[in-house]
Amino acid sequence: MKLPPKLPPKPVQEADFPSPAAIAEAHARIAPRIHRTPVLTSSSLDALSGARLYFKCENLQKTGSFKIRGATNAIFSLSEQEAARGIVTHSSGNHAAAVACAAGWRGVPAWIVMPRNAPQIKCRAVEAYGGKITFCEPAVSARAETAARIQLETGAVLVHPYDDDRIIAGQATAAKELLEEVGDLDAVLAPVSGGGLLSGTALGAKGVSPEIRVFGCEPERADDAYQSMATGKLQSLEKSDTIADGLRASLAPRTFAILRRNVEGILLVREEEIVSTMRTVWERMKIIIEPSSAVALAPLLQRSGVAELHLRPRADGELLKIGIIFSGGNVDLAALPFGLA
Amino acid sequence: MKLPPKLPPKPVQEADFPSPAAIAEAHARIAPRIHRTPVLTSSSLDALSGARLYFKCENLQKTGSFKIRGATNAIFSLSEQEAARGIVTHSSGNHAAAVACAAGWRGVPAWIVMPRNAPQIKCRAVEAYGGKITFCEPAVSARAETAARIQLETGAVLVHPYDDDRIIAGQATAAKELLEEVGDLDAVLAPVSGGGLLSGTALGAKGVSPEIRVFGCEPERADDAYQSMATGKLQSLEKSDTIADGLRASLAPRTFAILRRNVEGILLVREEEIVSTMRTVWERMKIIIEPSSAVALAPLLQRSGVAELHLRPRADGELLKIGIIFSGGNVDLAALPFGLA
Repeated sequence: MKLPPKLPPKPVQEADFPSPAAIAEAHARIAPRIHRTPVLTSSSLDALSGARLYFKCENLQKTGSFKIRGATNAIFSLSEQEAARGIVTHSSGNHAAAVACAAGWRGVPAWIVMPRNAPQIKCRAVEAYGGKITFCEPAVSARAETAARIQLETGAVLVHPYDDDRIIAGQATAAKELLEEVGDLDAVLAPVSGGGLLSGTALGAKGVSPEIRVFGCEPERADDAYQSMATGKLQSLEKSDTIADGLRASLAPRTFAILRRNVEGILLVREEEIVSTMRTVWERMKIIIEPSSAVALAPLLQRSGVAELHLRPRADGELLKIGIIFSGGNVDLAALPFGLA
Repeated sequence: MKLPPKLPPKPVQEADFPSPAAIAEAHARIAPRIHRTPVLTSSSLDALSGARLYFKCENLQKTGSFKIRGATNAIFSLSEQEAARGIVTHSSGNHAAAVACAAGWRGVPAWIVMPRNAPQIKCRAVEAYGGKITFCEPAVSARAETAARIQLETGAVLVHPYDDDRIIAGQATAAKELLEEVGDLDAVLAPVSGGGLLSGTALGAKGVSPEIRVFGCEPERADDAYQSMATGKLQSLEKSDTIADGLRASLAPRTFAILRRNVEGILLVREEEIVSTMRTVWERMKIIIEPSSAVALAPLLQRSGVAELHLRPRADGELLKIGIIFSGGNVDLAALPFGLA
């Protein structure tokens, strides 16, 4: 893991970010349709990390990832007229399935742009939910261009995978639930790709526990968030080839602005650390997480454990309490990476 | 699936079975040490079965199976003097790990007899908990004889894997928790091997909901419970080679007596149905279950779904509500059976 240079103290949250009220509204809107996922613990992973870990299991969420939270909030926020035009989006997989599913709940069509190298299991899921897939080249710019073309042709409403306050407010509800269930966490870790989950996690967690520290976790092979935070300028990767297929996108201006003010830092992890962490979770916790989920735990299982976070000891002398967002569980059982471990 | 001939109406529970009070006592004794496992649902498995399914996830339990419930109750029921002599048991794996773990919590030694063909992952778990393994031939009689020899040599207390009221009362707490959380289940299904879990499930469930129907599920290749129920005479299999490695033992007189009075019938499943069900759960629910767990769901996913149970429709016109005990999640990731599916 590498931490970027220490940032100056963070000013208060800006007024135009999704507010605690907007997040509460999103929660009320989506709660009847999604799972309240369990928070699991594992004494063996506690021992490996040197902390008490609380896992928010969005891998057990409907559609197999947290993405259904934001998609449901965005799609059910639309007016009847807007929704009737249908939805278009682009995604490497989990947001795609979530939009297809939530559009189905709303009874409107969904056009989904996916990169050609998206996992087959995620493509099949989109189709099973009734989404209409258009494949594009595996590059960030190709995704956006293809979606824009479909938007022009069909008149559909774009639901961006992360550069959207309704999406961020929806993703924030996972951390809100976690903090409402386990009140006194010292820190929370989430993976970062486009930043929808991480910025939502920061706003959702700080809405309940203002003092909590929030960390993003990112593959070294897709380190745009790390580079953006380190340089103070938004960096984009045109391509990235990490095994964490959900983490290949780059930050948007909106998510970058939220992260700069609300996130302690970005922890980088190597490919072999991702695979090894994923395997450990499968074996010890008996739950299926995808590589992107493992990214959020890897910093605590590798090297010096929780010391990697440089947190102050707790005033009560107990072990540090850390929340981890397990973002999803969609893996292809016919192509497991454990041979690499 | 095959159902044995319909049994006559069941008389009330006999006084010498573990009573609701004994089960409540067991629950109070073990609750501080074990997980209260989540009850998960899955709309896609509901659709496949034609019922509403509630999964009690003992695969997420400490040591990876329900066995820690009975082992903890038995070992913490011992007097100081008894416990100090140490514990001996025999088991194909999950009870072995549970006894080693609970003995460790109590601070006393555990001698564990395991068949030579027990999965390596289960042997490693026993060792990790500090248990001392003695291997024996993979036959029921060899297990008991080896344990008896160790008992003579060491003076240790035998904690039988299922022929023991303290074990049955402990296993009953899983169904008790399930029924307390989801009150109006029409039926509950659990796998059956020696009958500790199934008899506990019947007593635990009926203690909360006296009208509930209880079914056992068993591999065709280890069908001693089916044969015993069908003939009214206790049948034993000297050997069995099902992939459900946790279900190779045979009923004891105690568990058979409880099952005859409290269980509706035994459903048989084929090896390929076990593997296919296991894969479906991994893919749809994102949790790792071992083959023995899949046995309890297979009757509802294969052939005619919930109709296999021949239950009356609900008075409220809703879908039938069925509880499933997922017994454990200990599988060797290096030897997955999905190539067979």
